[in-house]
Amino acid sequence: MARADGRNPDQLRPVTITRNWLAHAEGSVLVEFGGTRVLCAASVQDSVPRWRKGSGQGWVTAEYAMLPRATNTRNDRESVRGKIGGRTHEISRLIGRSLRACVDYKILGENSIMIDCDVLQADGGTRTAAITGAYVALVDAVRWMRERKMCKGDPLVASVAAVSVGVVKSTPLLDLCYTEDVAAETDMNVVMTGTGEFVEVQGTAEGRPFDRAALDQLLDLGAAGCAELTRLQKEALA
Amino acid sequence: MARADGRNPDQLRPVTITRNWLAHAEGSVLVEFGGTRVLCAASVQDSVPRWRKGSGQGWVTAEYAMLPRATNTRNDRESVRGKIGGRTHEISRLIGRSLRACVDYKILGENSIMIDCDVLQADGGTRTAAITGAYVALVDAVRWMRERKMCKGDPLVASVAAVSVGVVKSTPLLDLCYTEDVAAETDMNVVMTGTGEFVEVQGTAEGRPFDRAALDQLLDLGAAGCAELTRLQKEALA
Amino acid sequence: MARADGRNPDQLRPVTITRNWLAHAEGSVLVEFGGTRVLCAASVQDSVPRWRKGSGQGWVTAEYAMLPRATNTRNDRESVRGKIGGRTHEISRLIGRSLRACVDYKILGENSIMIDCDVLQADGGTRTAAITGAYVALVDAVRWMRERKMCKGDPLVASVAAVSVGVVKSTPLLDLCYTEDVAAETDMNVVMTGTGEFVEVQGTAEGRPFDRAALDQLLDLGAAGCAELTRLQKEALA
Amino acid sequence: MARADGRNPDQLRPVTITRNWLAHAEGSVLVEFGGTRVLCAASVQDSVPRWRKGSGQGWVTAEYAMLPRATNTRNDRESVRGKIGGRTHEISRLIGRSLRACVDYKILGENSIMIDCDVLQADGGTRTAAITGAYVALVDAVRWMRERKMCKGDPLVASVAAVSVGVVKSTPLLDLCYTEDVAAETDMNVVMTGTGEFVEVQGTAEGRPFDRAALDQLLDLGAAGCAELTRLQKEALA
Amino acid sequence: MARADGRNPDQLRPVTITRNWLAHAEGSVLVEFGGTRVLCAASVQDSVPRWRKGSGQGWVTAEYAMLPRATNTRNDRESVRGKIGGRTHEISRLIGRSLRACVDYKILGENSIMIDCDVLQADGGTRTAAITGAYVALVDAVRWMRERKMCKGDPLVASVAAVSVGVVKSTPLLDLCYTEDVAAETDMNVVMTGTGEFVEVQGTAEGRPFDRAALDQLLDLGAAGCAELTRLQKEALA
Amino acid sequence: MARADGRNPDQLRPVTITRNWLAHAEGSVLVEFGGTRVLCAASVQDSVPRWRKGSGQGWVTAEYAMLPRATNTRNDRESVRGKIGGRTHEISRLIGRSLRACVDYKILGENSIMIDCDVLQADGGTRTAAITGAYVALVDAVRWMRERKMCKGDPLVASVAAVSVGVVKSTPLLDLCYTEDVAAETDMNVVMTGTGEFVEVQGTAEGRPFDRAALDQLLDLGAAGCAELTRLQKEALA
Repeated sequence: MARADGRNPDQLRPVTITRNWLAHAEGSVLVEFGGTRVLCAASVQDSVPRWRKGSGQGWVTAEYAMLPRATNTRNDRESVRGKIGGRTHEISRLIGRSLRACVDYKILGENSIMIDCDVLQADGGTRTAAITGAYVALVDAVRWMRERKMCKGDPLVASVAAVSVGVVKSTPLLDLCYTEDVAAETDMNVVMTGTGEFVEVQGTAEGRPFDRAALDQLLDLGAAGCAELTRLQKEALA
Repeated sequence: MARADGRNPDQLRPVTITRNWLAHAEGSVLVEFGGTRVLCAASVQDSVPRWRKGSGQGWVTAEYAMLPRATNTRNDRESVRGKIGGRTHEISRLIGRSLRACVDYKILGENSIMIDCDVLQADGGTRTAAITGAYVALVDAVRWMRERKMCKGDPLVASVAAVSVGVVKSTPLLDLCYTEDVAAETDMNVVMTGTGEFVEVQGTAEGRPFDRAALDQLLDLGAAGCAELTRLQKEALA
Repeated sequence: MARADGRNPDQLRPVTITRNWLAHAEGSVLVEFGGTRVLCAASVQDSVPRWRKGSGQGWVTAEYAMLPRATNTRNDRESVRGKIGGRTHEISRLIGRSLRACVDYKILGENSIMIDCDVLQADGGTRTAAITGAYVALVDAVRWMRERKMCKGDPLVASVAAVSVGVVKSTPLLDLCYTEDVAAETDMNVVMTGTGEFVEVQGTAEGRPFDRAALDQLLDLGAAGCAELTRLQKEALA
Repeated sequence: MARADGRNPDQLRPVTITRNWLAHAEGSVLVEFGGTRVLCAASVQDSVPRWRKGSGQGWVTAEYAMLPRATNTRNDRESVRGKIGGRTHEISRLIGRSLRACVDYKILGENSIMIDCDVLQADGGTRTAAITGAYVALVDAVRWMRERKMCKGDPLVASVAAVSVGVVKSTPLLDLCYTEDVAAETDMNVVMTGTGEFVEVQGTAEGRPFDRAALDQLLDLGAAGCAELTRLQKEALA
Repeated sequence: MARADGRNPDQLRPVTITRNWLAHAEGSVLVEFGGTRVLCAASVQDSVPRWRKGSGQGWVTAEYAMLPRATNTRNDRESVRGKIGGRTHEISRLIGRSLRACVDYKILGENSIMIDCDVLQADGGTRTAAITGAYVALVDAVRWMRERKMCKGDPLVASVAAVSVGVVKSTPLLDLCYTEDVAAETDMNVVMTGTGEFVEVQGTAEGRPFDRAALDQLLDLGAAGCAELTRLQKEALA
Repeated sequence: MARADGRNPDQLRPVTITRNWLAHAEGSVLVEFGGTRVLCAASVQDSVPRWRKGSGQGWVTAEYAMLPRATNTRNDRESVRGKIGGRTHEISRLIGRSLRACVDYKILGENSIMIDCDVLQADGGTRTAAITGAYVALVDAVRWMRERKMCKGDPLVASVAAVSVGVVKSTPLLDLCYTEDVAAETDMNVVMTGTGEFVEVQGTAEGRPFDRAALDQLLDLGAAGCAELTRLQKEALA
């Protein structure tokens, strides 16, 4: 199957990771997976949520949102509608869980890091681009904290990267763009550590149920994609 | 590892599926997985959401909620807080996607089925119990429609069942109760058709990342559990 | 006038009061008035609302809600609509006031009891069934507290029960089911103590205004119904 | 028992009913019961709510609210809090039901009348003052409609007036001011037609339950008060 | 150009300022600019918002709202809609800024004054009438505080008054009524101190952009109007 | 007075206007005034709001928002808080009014253009940068429409640009950055057409009232700044 942009089935789109895109945030990254462009900003606070106080442990959380015209047709703002939609909630929670897999809370101490992932332009894979970029912003925020001696060592115990995979017209593909995503029979998001372990696997039968063989193929493809993204994160952080 | 209730690692809790628990709903089921008790009510409407009008196709959706004292300590009502939380959104969406895998929308015609899954009592695995019970309520609702000639044939193309699996103290366990869920290092929800294909796989590293071998073990365990639940659904529907 | 279910005008529907229906709540009751089924859960907290702090006195309050498919046609969830409707507010307030008539706050000490009344199935008289069941759940919660020496004695100074009465086709009827309620010209809810005094009387002319004679007849009927419900509460609590 | 303002137990406060207080509304009344001042504005629309369309029948409804500084200490605005409180809901519904008892919807035709009752200053009895004033505004709105031939005759089939009664230090009192209301053991609102029939009776034991004798006394007192208010309404409308 | 009510272009409508219109508020004014009628209530609190605590300084703020039938056609309540509209926000902020120009926060001490401006009837210029009346209510609230020795001197360092001006059919007019406001090509609100300095100037091209000459003319007209309103405020406060 | 970045009092910050920053929007601009960076996206719809239907006329509106970490400390999202703040409302309305001054609605036909202005990074003057950039996005959206023959000619009758001016330490300054804005005694936003006429003038005494001479100086400064911005807009659009 030929892909719209001529990629091989197991090829990522061009990925760019631009650090320090913002002047104010303790860590900030503009991450691009092809036409998908997500601004990740890490904010450090020297306090923790109420339920965490006195524990000696920190907290990491994330919020995901899309600008109204990130997509082909405009979406109403969630602030104007007065509530957050299910999709936004679901993705914010996924990003938060993924980043928390990188952190030793005791070493972080009673500090919080909030990662805002705002999609400026969407072309498929916004949540996986967000996780991949947010990790880099998190590293920069932690470096900022360590310069100020806010942590008792290095709280980062792993790196994370994420990629989407899916079956389109019976072919497993890596890093789906929007038109491929819409056409996918099966859709999976794979979040992995830099050492090749799984943090989160979410596979969904969009059109028809999938068997174990397809699942295995998608996991292989996702693992290879995450390994490549890990390499790009390291490059960006060097 | 001995389980609190003496089960084998690959054993489900006692499951009961009580049909017609409600007088008004077109399909209704009280499903119990041990101490977890979910009331599933299917409501039929002879119309579809606006974006679906004129397509000749139907729609199936779901809403999940917990009564405030389903859990050990009381949770404030989402109606009183004025908004739906992220967890509720995430689970409602999962149940809806799972049930939609069973249905041929063209045969359903321009009708909707809404499945309400209300947790009366929670002891782990509420979302998987909800999916398993909701499928049975869906079948009853479809039978009700077919008696009234609302569909052009049988719109059900598959059955679905779901179960949670997880790794607790390095042991893979089937159908986690609440105390096991809290202690799990890895947590996975597996939704499968009656023919053993996957509809949704969601695996999360709660404590530490997991490798492919652990993932494979959990998928095996989940597949066996779903097969057993499929058998119990058939029995209940006989 | 013959009633749909063959009852005499002054006869209650079959009433069942099942205690300890839930595993987690300090008191819980499934109360049934015919087809009306309400789950009442009492939650104890060893604190009071802010405005009550330091007073040495406790607080009792209630929340009422209906599951979406408790009724013949589905109602949207108040959590989804993002606000609580007027009817829900009105009934929650009525239940709270009724239960507060049973309690000596000084003896209760600075503790709170919240009674959640969730209608699983509705066939008229949900608010009166809720009050009648909630009182029993309250007694169980208080017993739970006394076993733990949380109170300085018995804070319960009265029992309460409630029933609806109404005039249908000029005949005063006790304990209206839904079809009778819809047809009623006058509708009254009577909340009484176990010693036959009034806690709340709410009479409404649905179709046409009513005179003092009709009011008196309804009060007599309500008083007899509450006396019978008091007897059933005692039996359940024995 | 001497009353703060020297009234007899069965005496109303000075009542004034000022018609046409507003320039724009089809009917408007500033009603005063002593220090309680409520602005009632009736708005006519030549349409009905969606669920009423095509029925040939009209609708009457009401909304009650308090200005933030109507009371001794300031209350936050419900618009700022983003939701309507239970008390506001309860009273709006009571006023609406009371006014609907006056109207023949078929004669009203497919028109709506909305009565806004805004409490400018509160000193007890705001809901009963609101009902009493709202009826007069309703009459003016109906006259306005009849001048424009919007109705097929006179849709008003009754008048309504309302008053609060209560037991303070064992003495039944008519038309409680705020300090009496706070001290009342029993509190009752009585809504009656001009011909002396009941539209709504709401009695609440604030401090302790009340017996039938007390209830009867309060009903007598309320009936006399409503008769006097009916006389004042007629005078104002003459 | 002849004005609807026969006024000269540079003439205010009849203005009345009635102090102490409410019994409970520390300062209260019913201000009328022709048919525009705004009730201004000043509430004193011996505390400040959280972000101001410990500063030794006070705070003054304002909220503006309209009764639903203040206007020719009824507007839905913002409390019912569950949110405050942009216009309400904008005007509340303008009134707050204007009043804060009058106050020395250090002399006020850690006290707050909230001014509620509720439009009972609207005929153009509601925000400028609100500011003009609110200032008088503020003075009364400050006098009330000074009688109770809550301030360390006189916190009022200026007076403010406000008026609208606009160009209608090429003629600059002072104090526009509603029909003039709707027809205005340019609309300006001018807020000035009693000593003739500007606190706020907001000019908007409604129909077509305006040049510096028109702007100058409107400022002259506004300055004269504010001077006259200052005189009326003084008279009212004498 | 020396400015932090060495500018003259009457000098703009470096301004860049990057067109077509987004792939999907009909017009899009990233506008930068020094460290202030606003993304303006124009969305065309071939319909109008309900109240405008059948008029033959179009509509232009705008929404302004800030990303949570656009500023030095993180602000909670308005979508999470569930409501839009007063400042956001005020600025959205200002941008909308300013852009509407450019458009002949009859020539636009029954089409709408919504301009989203999202502040990616804030350093003072976000609203004036937004207006200046939004105009350019509007022009591109109109060109897009004209290529598709959606308009009956050129609906643009004027250009608009905007700049902030203010008095800091008694010196009138053009185009204030954040630290200057905070220190300003008087703050004014000036919106002008390309032909030098005023569309909106908003001057506010932050610290102390200002006299006519100061107002005149600020207007002169604003007019010069807008003229320069108009030149830059033309350059960008060439």
